[in-house]
Amino acid sequence: MSQHYDVAIIGAGVSGVYSAWQLKQQFPGKRIAVFEGSGRIGGRLLSVKAPGVDNMVAELGGMRILDATRQPLIHALLDQINQFSSLPDPIEYYPFPVDTPVNFAYLREVRLRLKDYQDNPHALPYNYSTDAFGKTPGSVMIDALDKIVPGITAPNLTEEQRRVMAMNAEFQGKMLYEQGFWNVLQQVMSSEDYLYCQDAGGYNSTMSNWNAADAIPWFLTDFGDDVKYFGFKQGFQQVPVALAEEFQAIGGELMLGHKLTTFTQVNGAFELNFNTELEIIPHDTLQCTATHLVLAMPRRAIDLLEPNCPLLQQPAVKSLTGSVTPRPLFKLFTTYASPWWVEQSGIESGRSVTNMPVRQTYYWPTDEGKPALSGPAILMASYDDGVNVGFWDGYRQKRGLAWKQQMEVLPLPEFRAFTGLKQQQSGADTQWLAHQAPESMVTEVTRQIDLIHNVTAEEATQTQPLQAAFRDWGDDPYGGGWNSWNIGVQSGNVANQIVQPLPQTHFYICGEAYSHSQGWVEGALQTAQLMLAKLKPQLSA
Amino acid sequence: MSQHYDVAIIGAGVSGVYSAWQLKQQFPGKRIAVFEGSGRIGGRLLSVKAPGVDNMVAELGGMRILDATRQPLIHALLDQINQFSSLPDPIEYYPFPVDTPVNFAYLREVRLRLKDYQDNPHALPYNYSTDAFGKTPGSVMIDALDKIVPGITAPNLTEEQRRVMAMNAEFQGKMLYEQGFWNVLQQVMSSEDYLYCQDAGGYNSTMSNWNAADAIPWFLTDFGDDVKYFGFKQGFQQVPVALAEEFQAIGGELMLGHKLTTFTQVNGAFELNFNTELEIIPHDTLQCTATHLVLAMPRRAIDLLEPNCPLLQQPAVKSLTGSVTPRPLFKLFTTYASPWWVEQSGIESGRSVTNMPVRQTYYWPTDEGKPALSGPAILMASYDDGVNVGFWDGYRQKRGLAWKQQMEVLPLPEFRAFTGLKQQQSGADTQWLAHQAPESMVTEVTRQIDLIHNVTAEEATQTQPLQAAFRDWGDDPYGGGWNSWNIGVQSGNVANQIVQPLPQTHFYICGEAYSHSQGWVEGALQTAQLMLAKLKPQLSA
Repeated sequence: MSQHYDVAIIGAGVSGVYSAWQLKQQFPGKRIAVFEGSGRIGGRLLSVKAPGVDNMVAELGGMRILDATRQPLIHALLDQINQFSSLPDPIEYYPFPVDTPVNFAYLREVRLRLKDYQDNPHALPYNYSTDAFGKTPGSVMIDALDKIVPGITAPNLTEEQRRVMAMNAEFQGKMLYEQGFWNVLQQVMSSEDYLYCQDAGGYNSTMSNWNAADAIPWFLTDFGDDVKYFGFKQGFQQVPVALAEEFQAIGGELMLGHKLTTFTQVNGAFELNFNTELEIIPHDTLQCTATHLVLAMPRRAIDLLEPNCPLLQQPAVKSLTGSVTPRPLFKLFTTYASPWWVEQSGIESGRSVTNMPVRQTYYWPTDEGKPALSGPAILMASYDDGVNVGFWDGYRQKRGLAWKQQMEVLPLPEFRAFTGLKQQQSGADTQWLAHQAPESMVTEVTRQIDLIHNVTAEEATQTQPLQAAFRDWGDDPYGGGWNSWNIGVQSGNVANQIVQPLPQTHFYICGEAYSHSQGWVEGALQTAQLMLAKLKPQLSA
Repeated sequence: MSQHYDVAIIGAGVSGVYSAWQLKQQFPGKRIAVFEGSGRIGGRLLSVKAPGVDNMVAELGGMRILDATRQPLIHALLDQINQFSSLPDPIEYYPFPVDTPVNFAYLREVRLRLKDYQDNPHALPYNYSTDAFGKTPGSVMIDALDKIVPGITAPNLTEEQRRVMAMNAEFQGKMLYEQGFWNVLQQVMSSEDYLYCQDAGGYNSTMSNWNAADAIPWFLTDFGDDVKYFGFKQGFQQVPVALAEEFQAIGGELMLGHKLTTFTQVNGAFELNFNTELEIIPHDTLQCTATHLVLAMPRRAIDLLEPNCPLLQQPAVKSLTGSVTPRPLFKLFTTYASPWWVEQSGIESGRSVTNMPVRQTYYWPTDEGKPALSGPAILMASYDDGVNVGFWDGYRQKRGLAWKQQMEVLPLPEFRAFTGLKQQQSGADTQWLAHQAPESMVTEVTRQIDLIHNVTAEEATQTQPLQAAFRDWGDDPYGGGWNSWNIGVQSGNVANQIVQPLPQTHFYICGEAYSHSQGWVEGALQTAQLMLAKLKPQLSA
C-alpha cells in the first residue's frame, strides 16, 4: 500500500523540520511528510542530560548561536517558536562565555593563562613575528585577513558586504575564490604566527585549505574580536523538536526510523524506498511516492545515497553536491562530583586551549547559564577537529559501522564502556547511555586534562570523571560537524543552484552544508529559505 | 571477439609484472596477460628525466630500497633481472644519503644544522623532556618504542622477530594491535618530544594513528639509526620495465591503456570488461575471459572497482580489503642552472627538514649517485604527507579528476603551467611534461626553500627554478603513496587471507598495500610471492 505525498522531506535536522513546518503552515491542504533515518529529531543538534547532573544539558552537537545582527534568522525563528501553542516551555538562551582571562593556554607544554597573550607575551612558546607580539590569536588573524582583502575587517561591514568583497577580490594576481585559505594565510603571516593562531584558536580545520573567499567573511563573523555567543537553557535540540511538534500539530506527518535507500523518478513523481530496520519499526521495507522531494541533508548523506539514485549521479547534480568538504568534529563530555577546576585553578567558565589532541576544554555552564560552582558538574573535556579527531579513533569503533548496521551509535563490545557510577544510570537519558565513552578514552582524556590544569597527585582523585559520553560527527551519515566550500567554487552560484539542481525537476536540496553560515543553524535556515522560495510557487501553481 | 586467458593480472606495477613474469616462466604454455589502466608500466614507480638535466633521473614515485638483510626480495630480484637477455643495460644502484650533519633543520622558524640536534640542543625550539635532550629524533623514537615493547629495539633482531613480538605484545592491559600508534606514543613520550620527532623526522602520517603493532617493527626497519638507503642509477622504474620486457620476451601479453571497469563470474571463469578510452587505443570497449584473476593493485583502486563488481562487495572480501588506509604522498621536483645550495649553504647531499608544508627537501644526486657540484641540478623540493598534502591542493586541480577522465594526469587549463625555460622542452620526457607543476606552486615552494636556506635578496635569482614537476600519489587510482594497517587488524592473518580472499574462487589480490613492508617495493614482492604460492598449484593442477 503506497502512500502519496505532495512533499517528502528527507532528514529531520533543522533545515528539514523548519521547511516542513513552513510549508504545512502555508499549504495546510497539502500532504507533507518528514522522513528521518535515525530514531530522533535534530540531526546534528543533540542535547542530553548526564546522569547525576540535573541542572545542566550537555550539547553533543551544535551548542550555540551568535547575536541577532550576525544571525537574524535563528533569532526571528526563536521568536516565532515561542508563540507556538504546542510549546510546553519557552525556549531561552544565555550568554555563553568562551575566552576568559584566567583560562589556561597549555601550548607546547608551556602553561599560561589567556591573559598572558597580552600581559606576558615573552612567555609564549612561539617564535612569532614582532607584528604578532602581545596580541591575541584573534587579533593576529584579523590583521592577516585585512592584508589579504584590505578593508574587509572594518567593523561596520555586514557579513554580506564582506562576502561580496571577498568573492570579487584578487590576491597576488588571482581571484581569491580560486585560492586556499591556508595558502593565502602563509603569504601574509609567518609560519609561527599561523601555528600560534591555530594552536591557540582551538581549531585545525577552520584554518586549513578551504575556499579563501568563503573562509574570510566566515571567520570574521565567527571569530571576530567582539563576537558574543549564546547557549540554550534546555539544550539547542529544543528548537528542531519544537518545530517538529508544531508541524505535527498542524497536520504534518513525521516518520522516524525511515532511512531513505533509493529514489527514482516515475511518471513525473518520485518513488521513494525506505529501510526501516531501526528497532522502533517492524522489519519491513516501506515505499511511497511524492510530487516534490527535498533532501535536507549534508554532503556525506547525499554521497551515501548516490550509488542507488541515478538522479544524484547526473553530472549537473554532482558538480553541485561535490562543492563542499565535510569536516569531522569530535566532542567528549565528562561529569564530576564537583567542579574541581574552580578551586584547583580559579577557573569558572569559558574554555582552556591546548595543542594536545584535547584542543579545547569547556567548563560547562548550568542551565541558567551560570558557572557551576558546587555540586555535580560537567566538562566538555574535548572539542576538537581535523587530524585530532584521528587521535580518538584508537579508542573507539571504526567510523561508519553504526550507519551500515542501521543504528545511530554502536554499542561497545570490545571497547569497555566507562561506567564510573553505574548505580546512577537508572533513569538516565537514553542518548547519553547510547553515547557512553570507552574506558580507555576517558583515561586518556583525563591524562591530558590533568596536564592542562597541572593537577597534582593529591588532586588526581577529584579529576576522575564519573560519567563520559562522546560524539564524532565525522561518522555516517553526517560525515562532518560542519562543511566547507572547496577551492575554486563560486559559492554564491552553487548555493542558489543547489536548492533546485535541475530546473525542470521537483527535486530540492537544503541544509547547513551548502550555506554561507557553514557549521551554524543559521546556515540551515538560509538554505531552507532559498529552497522554499523555489518550492512554494510550485505548490501554489 | 572475446579472448580467453588462463591468468589475467590487473595492474602493471611491480607486484603485477613480477607475478606475470614468474607465472609465465614456470608455465610457458599458459596464456597470461597483464592489463594496465594507464599508458605506462610501473604503477607508483615513475622515473623521469628533467629537461636540461642529462645526468639525473627524478623519481616522482618510489625512489629507494634498503640493504639486502632488510629487503632480501628486491635484492634477489635485481640479481635475477641482471641476467635477463632482454635487458639492455644492467640495473645498478648507489648509496642514497638522507641525514648528513650540515643539512638544515628549519623548525619553528629556527634555522639549525642537523648536527645541532646533538651539538647544540639548547637551540632546539622544543620544550622537550630531559630524556630527549641532545638526541636525534631517530634515537628519541627508538627509546619510545622500547618502552612500548621492551627489548624490541635490540639491534640483533630481524624484522620478522620484531613483528611477532609486537603482534603478541600487550601495552597497558590491551593487545598492542588493538591500539593506535599515536595513542601509545603519547603514553611513553611527552607532547613536545612527539612533535620534535614528527617535525624533524619529516613525515606526518608515519606517526599517526595506525596499527601500533605494525607500526613499531615497520618504523624500526625504515628509520632505525643504522639504516642505509640505495637509489637507482637509471631510475627505479627500470625494475618493473625490465620485468615487463622479459615477460613479453617469453610470450606474455601486456595491454596498456586497459582500465578494468567490471568483472563478473560466469560459469567458473571471470568475464572482464575494459574501458580503453586512453589515447593509445581506439575507442572501444574490450572484453575477455580468464580462469584466474589477479588484482595487483592498492586499496583505493579496489574501492574504485567495487561499485561495479559484486565479488568485491561480499562481506568476506570487504573485511579484508578495508583493513588498510591509503596515505597520500606528495613529491615536487625543481631544476636549476646550478646546485646553488653547495656554495650558498655548504650542502651537497641528503635532505633538509622543516615543519613548513615543504617538510623535506632532497639535494638530488647524479645518476652515478654523486652529489651534483656543478652544472644543471635538481632538488626534490618537497616530499610531504598527511595534512601537508592538503596545502598543495590550492595550487592544482581537484584530486580524482584525471582518473575519471581516463587520463593519468590532467593538463593545466586554469592552473598556468610553470615554464621557466620553454625552449629546453623539445625532446623532453613526456612524463615530465605531463607532470609539470603550476606556476603558483613553484612560486610558493621557492618561497619556502628560500626560508629554509636563508636565501638573501641577492641570491634569490639563482634559487629560481627552471622547470618543475609534481606528483600526488593520493590521486586516483592509487589513493596513497603507501598504505597503513588499520587499528584492530591482525595483519598477519589478513595478509595471508587476502591473496585469495575466497578459498574456492580463483580470485587473487596482491600489492604493497596488504604487505608487511608497506610503502616499499619489498612489500609488493612479499605479497606477490604469497599470492603465487596459492595460484601456482592451481595452474599445475
